[in-house]
Amino acid sequence: MAAYKDLSKEELLGLKADLEKEFKKVKAKGIKLDMSRGKPSTEQLNLSMEMMDVLTSKSDLVCTEGVDCRNYGVLDGIKEAKQLLADMMEVPKDNIVIFGNSSLNVMYDTIARSMTHGVMGSTPWCKLDKVKFLCPVPGYDRHFAITEYFGIEMINVPMTPTGPDMDIVEKLVSSDPAIKGIWCVPKYSNPQGITYSDETVHRFAKLNPAAEDFRIYWDNAYGIHHLYEDKQDHLIEIFMECKKEGHPDMVYKFASTSKISFPGSGIGAIAASDANLADIRNQMKIQTIGHDKLNQLRHARYFGNIHGMVQHMKRHADIMRPKFDAVLNTLETELGGLEIGSWIAPRGGYFISFDSMEGCAKAIVAKAKEAGLVMTDAGATFPYGRDPKDSNIRIAPSYPTLEEIREAAKIFVLSVKLVSIDKILESK
Amino acid sequence: MAAYKDLSKEELLGLKADLEKEFKKVKAKGIKLDMSRGKPSTEQLNLSMEMMDVLTSKSDLVCTEGVDCRNYGVLDGIKEAKQLLADMMEVPKDNIVIFGNSSLNVMYDTIARSMTHGVMGSTPWCKLDKVKFLCPVPGYDRHFAITEYFGIEMINVPMTPTGPDMDIVEKLVSSDPAIKGIWCVPKYSNPQGITYSDETVHRFAKLNPAAEDFRIYWDNAYGIHHLYEDKQDHLIEIFMECKKEGHPDMVYKFASTSKISFPGSGIGAIAASDANLADIRNQMKIQTIGHDKLNQLRHARYFGNIHGMVQHMKRHADIMRPKFDAVLNTLETELGGLEIGSWIAPRGGYFISFDSMEGCAKAIVAKAKEAGLVMTDAGATFPYGRDPKDSNIRIAPSYPTLEEIREAAKIFVLSVKLVSIDKILESK
Repeated sequence: MAAYKDLSKEELLGLKADLEKEFKKVKAKGIKLDMSRGKPSTEQLNLSMEMMDVLTSKSDLVCTEGVDCRNYGVLDGIKEAKQLLADMMEVPKDNIVIFGNSSLNVMYDTIARSMTHGVMGSTPWCKLDKVKFLCPVPGYDRHFAITEYFGIEMINVPMTPTGPDMDIVEKLVSSDPAIKGIWCVPKYSNPQGITYSDETVHRFAKLNPAAEDFRIYWDNAYGIHHLYEDKQDHLIEIFMECKKEGHPDMVYKFASTSKISFPGSGIGAIAASDANLADIRNQMKIQTIGHDKLNQLRHARYFGNIHGMVQHMKRHADIMRPKFDAVLNTLETELGGLEIGSWIAPRGGYFISFDSMEGCAKAIVAKAKEAGLVMTDAGATFPYGRDPKDSNIRIAPSYPTLEEIREAAKIFVLSVKLVSIDKILESK
Repeated sequence: MAAYKDLSKEELLGLKADLEKEFKKVKAKGIKLDMSRGKPSTEQLNLSMEMMDVLTSKSDLVCTEGVDCRNYGVLDGIKEAKQLLADMMEVPKDNIVIFGNSSLNVMYDTIARSMTHGVMGSTPWCKLDKVKFLCPVPGYDRHFAITEYFGIEMINVPMTPTGPDMDIVEKLVSSDPAIKGIWCVPKYSNPQGITYSDETVHRFAKLNPAAEDFRIYWDNAYGIHHLYEDKQDHLIEIFMECKKEGHPDMVYKFASTSKISFPGSGIGAIAASDANLADIRNQMKIQTIGHDKLNQLRHARYFGNIHGMVQHMKRHADIMRPKFDAVLNTLETELGGLEIGSWIAPRGGYFISFDSMEGCAKAIVAKAKEAGLVMTDAGATFPYGRDPKDSNIRIAPSYPTLEEIREAAKIFVLSVKLVSIDKILESK
């Protein structure tokens, strides 16, 4: 196909008329599809159903360290859960603290604690005139929501195919003591599916922050969430790298089993240096007596070890892969060569990121909604919900069925085409 | 027995020699007993074992409102869990928000949020020069730990047999805008087992705080935790009282199922006015996508309704009652008439509070420890761990077996006697 921009006004108008007919037909089907969030599908949830049978009234509910998991106690997680999550997060088991059901909650609490109590003895952020965070964009809306909620100024840092633009990161972090953190989804990033390159990770570990309480917020949400057996990204483990570079305290790693077992009923964790964890435990012991140990035990016994978890993830991949392939094929077949949008084929994670022509994203999402397809709000992948180019759209193919995904992809490309034609016509 | 203070020096020395022999014998047994925390016993935990069979791989895990409890979603709790906890907390189901496994965590988060964001639009407490809390004493150490952690100044308010001294509460709350809250365990209080009288609750509801963001922190931890079928305390429901008095926003109620199902694997909740809950949800939606719905469903299906829960609590009472009776009988038999200590026989809750002669509590706890009995640290029931009279000791009879409790009670009264004799001898 020729690029739309090279078509004449008449050709575009003709094309538009045809596409509108097509759109009308699709709309008439009265479809209702939600591709807005990275939710696992029912089929994926079914994969973990046997987890419900792991603990019964006949089970011994005492964990390896001899603690009755039904009672109070064990602030930072039972040993077998720590071992499992440590292996998943590629850190020593003593550098893990297990929390409740949500790593988002752990991240929120980490920022909240820094606001009121600082970081390892630093001035509480609420006592400072200005606190800033770097936000690689596009990124995860819930990260940005946390920093926005606490009045932290967010600075956009563009993503590149190898991770955040490290020239900018290095310059800002080393010069501005008000910059206290950077949000990272380093593997199969949300929404682009980009994995940070070795060089990027090394440059992160070598950062020399102006602020002693600067931390890298390393949300490795998709660490083992591959789509393919033969094509997998590899991410260098940052905690060890920071240690090697003499900055053991510079990184907090976050992860959870939300998209491994059950979202909302999984277990979340933080990994960090001894000094950071001592700081965290000092607060944690005031906040709680301990998190849900029975659910920790349930997870540890169900997966057995990291190998069990990796096998389990292959079954997730088998369900996810065809959906991603369906979207990517439709994008390629329908939009390839038209020069009205670009995207990256990810090798894992939960999203495909689409960049439309400038000024079209909101209109495309609105158009798709007209035909019954709900997508993530345009702009959501940027701090304050403001995409300066109005161009990024996050596609979340996990939740609908494969059948529905095919339908959704069609609606999406139709919407992209129609909005893009209007945009091009404006300047003809 | 004659009061110790009326005995001669010689009589006391003779008594002391006998008691020391007895103590030596007990010590030689090498007992190891922990009566320090309000932990349910293994026998009590066994009561809820069938809860582990409620959800299996064959179960329908969709809740009544049609949500798959395995997936993301439902910020503030599934309907059936709300109904159960609402009935337990005696409030309308729409005035409940369900949280994770710990009401302590909910209380912590409530204070943390007030620090950084204020209460319903008030100035964030971290921006104020001074924030104060009233602390009825003796009280719950973990409450005091939260306010201490946030640098909130704690003001002791003496407990009376009908609740906190309301003359003092009224005077302070109405005159000092820095006073933002009061910690209350209104039923079977920790540690005294006192239930606030009708008059006390009415006076709470009628408070006219100088601070618009003053809240009563009503931790009804033992609302249905009776010891006896025939002798039960009744507590007036405060949320409705506050509403009647035109102060619907003045109270936060907290509770959990920790000592009903499994400590650490139960569900916690807050009950408050619509306006308060809107404020709370605004923060909660940033902090989490939602808490563990499978555990909510497990609880709702296991108990069925509040009647099931009440029946369940009778079985807890059957296990707890003999332990309380054993301690109370030993106190009465061994210490009655000696005028070296006083206590209240509670009708529910988890504790017996003992007041020794002034200046003896620390020594008694140390003495008991010598014989292998670990009790709650003396002073722990006061803010900053400082009991001005060094007199209050919290006895927690729930965890040990009945056999052990009898042994523990003996060690305790021996320790009280020995320390008291020394004290009296000082002034002879």
